Amino acid sequence: MKVGIADTTFARVNMGSIAADEIRRNASVAIERVTVPGIKDLPVACKKLIEERKCDIVIALGMPGGKEKDRMCAHEASLGLISCQLMTNTHIIEVFVHEDEAKDDQELAWLAERRTREHAVNALKMILHPQELVREAGTGQRQGFPDARPARR
Amino acid sequence: MKVGIADTTFARVNMGSIAADEIRRNASVAIERVTVPGIKDLPVACKKLIEERKCDIVIALGMPGGKEKDRMCAHEASLGLISCQLMTNTHIIEVFVHEDEAKDDQELAWLAERRTREHAVNALKMILHPQELVREAGTGQRQGFPDARPARR
Amino acid sequence: MKVGIADTTFARVNMGSIAADEIRRNASVAIERVTVPGIKDLPVACKKLIEERKCDIVIALGMPGGKEKDRMCAHEASLGLISCQLMTNTHIIEVFVHEDEAKDDQELAWLAERRTREHAVNALKMILHPQELVREAGTGQRQGFPDARPARR
Amino acid sequence: MKVGIADTTFARVNMGSIAADEIRRNASVAIERVTVPGIKDLPVACKKLIEERKCDIVIALGMPGGKEKDRMCAHEASLGLISCQLMTNTHIIEVFVHEDEAKDDQELAWLAERRTREHAVNALKMILHPQELVREAGTGQRQGFPDARPARR
Amino acid sequence: MKVGIADTTFARVNMGSIAADEIRRNASVAIERVTVPGIKDLPVACKKLIEERKCDIVIALGMPGGKEKDRMCAHEASLGLISCQLMTNTHIIEVFVHEDEAKDDQELAWLAERRTREHAVNALKMILHPQELVREAGTGQRQGFPDARPARR
Repeated sequence: MKVGIADTTFARVNMGSIAADEIRRNASVAIERVTVPGIKDLPVACKKLIEERKCDIVIALGMPGGKEKDRMCAHEASLGLISCQLMTNTHIIEVFVHEDEAKDDQELAWLAERRTREHAVNALKMILHPQELVREAGTGQRQGFPDARPARR
Repeated sequence: MKVGIADTTFARVNMGSIAADEIRRNASVAIERVTVPGIKDLPVACKKLIEERKCDIVIALGMPGGKEKDRMCAHEASLGLISCQLMTNTHIIEVFVHEDEAKDDQELAWLAERRTREHAVNALKMILHPQELVREAGTGQRQGFPDARPARR
Repeated sequence: MKVGIADTTFARVNMGSIAADEIRRNASVAIERVTVPGIKDLPVACKKLIEERKCDIVIALGMPGGKEKDRMCAHEASLGLISCQLMTNTHIIEVFVHEDEAKDDQELAWLAERRTREHAVNALKMILHPQELVREAGTGQRQGFPDARPARR
Repeated sequence: MKVGIADTTFARVNMGSIAADEIRRNASVAIERVTVPGIKDLPVACKKLIEERKCDIVIALGMPGGKEKDRMCAHEASLGLISCQLMTNTHIIEVFVHEDEAKDDQELAWLAERRTREHAVNALKMILHPQELVREAGTGQRQGFPDARPARR
Repeated sequence: MKVGIADTTFARVNMGSIAADEIRRNASVAIERVTVPGIKDLPVACKKLIEERKCDIVIALGMPGGKEKDRMCAHEASLGLISCQLMTNTHIIEVFVHEDEAKDDQELAWLAERRTREHAVNALKMILHPQELVREAGTGQRQGFPDARPARR
């Protein structure tokens, strides 16, 4: 099994290294890493990780800014990541941390690390233990901030 | 005939189990189920259910949050689900329940269950009894909340 | 020649039957009809009409609600219909009547019928008499409400 | 060399005829013309001009209305035109004149004609004299209203 | 190695020439250049540079105006550039400078030049020294305006 990691020089936290660290702590799988300038460069970077470097799943990491223009970039990147998955029949776990989700730099760094680590674990579950995710279905899982509570009638 | 069910760990109701229950009550068809972290992971999950696990139709279940960012995620997921259908010539019934459609958790759970069950029945009609849908054409069917009334001149 | 008709159970007017009636009044062509739950199910339904049931053109009929969420659904469906056309080199005439275009139910039913009939005629022109459309180029044609006047210098 | 021209019956100016006239004034190339109801019908019309009628470039002409719904239609059509170009490796020059760009009908007619003529010349440059466009790089060219001035440090 | 450069006549700065100059200063690679009217013509121009003129990477340069319509054009162009990359497994570095990012013409010219030069260097790193980008991962790199500071817990 091989896990791809794609991140950006635009981000203000080294999300790629954190993802690699979490993958290594939890499983013995090969890792391929690439870094691109910004989140709009991620879709084709992931496609190349899948098709040229034979990754079984990819974690795509980015940190969009808080302005309207940045939100649009994130939207475009997300659509590209979904297209890429459909073209390759391979999952890409998108881990985007929007700058305006955090109240200050310290929380931003905390959130980026925590969300990255939780999604790295999700990526491993998807390729190694998919039944674990079925057991968590509908339980309000969140990555970074606390989980939501399940809703009951 | 085989029905695929894809849902998420993000949702606050186990929509996948409800869909499976409703399918089993109404027909003798095989069921394939997968759970992914969030709604943006659904398009490729559905594609794999169709192409790798040979489903004839898929029910894609999700519960987007009520914030602007969540609405954008739902939009991106929907576009991916439509692309997936066009790539595979296979219907995917999208069952999204937006958190802000319900006034409280209890109504949210009720709505999620009811919409899921009604759409599970729709999925069966599409593959087993498509003429029943032609008979319902233009009758203002809604899933969850009450149907709309037909408009007359 | 074969004309496909795809409509929805969500609509509050039986647009599919109206389209079929108008086609029959104006030409001797075969008709294939399918009804799906909502407008987001239309793109793949049209693709199947074109590829599996060999339609030369398809009329896709729907009635989006008046809320922001409904407008987004219509947008997603429209993008899917355009993709479908590009994948098949076949025209799909989209006939969407937005609930908020009419002031009451009576006008809504009138508008849905009139727009459907006018576009059914357009579909026939496209496959049988394309030069008639060239003669109408730039004349401000509208379907349903009155035509716009041509602009002159 | 063959130039395709696709326009609409929705437009309030016969943009297709103007484009054909300008092409004929400036070059000896074959012209293929098609007219469709609205701008959302343009993408597949262009694809058919390219693939079935062997056009080397296409001019796609439309006049979106001034309402929010019309802007969305134009957006959808534009995305379709871009997809079509990517699928065929062929340029399509989009010439859209939004009704709300002009202060009255007279200016609208003037703008539609002028923008159409300037873009018809662009289309010819693209297939016959691409180096002329390189010489105009970064010079603030506009089609219709006056050019912008180049910005200097 | 061959670098493609695509720019527009719409831009108010000759971004293509600046990119070519920066590429030549930093590496001995072949350059292919094309200029198109506007940013929506860039996606297919890039595809042709990749597929017909065999570029290993392309720099796509544009200067969208400050109005809502211009922002939509930029969005459409960006989606096309991402699709193009996915279809070709080749990176395209998008260098868009929005007119409203600068306070006057002088700053606009300065920003366009600086962002173009910095991204030209990024393009070279991507094809010649990809490990340099991994070393810059998460360091808040910006092109044009000053870099952002990394966030720490």
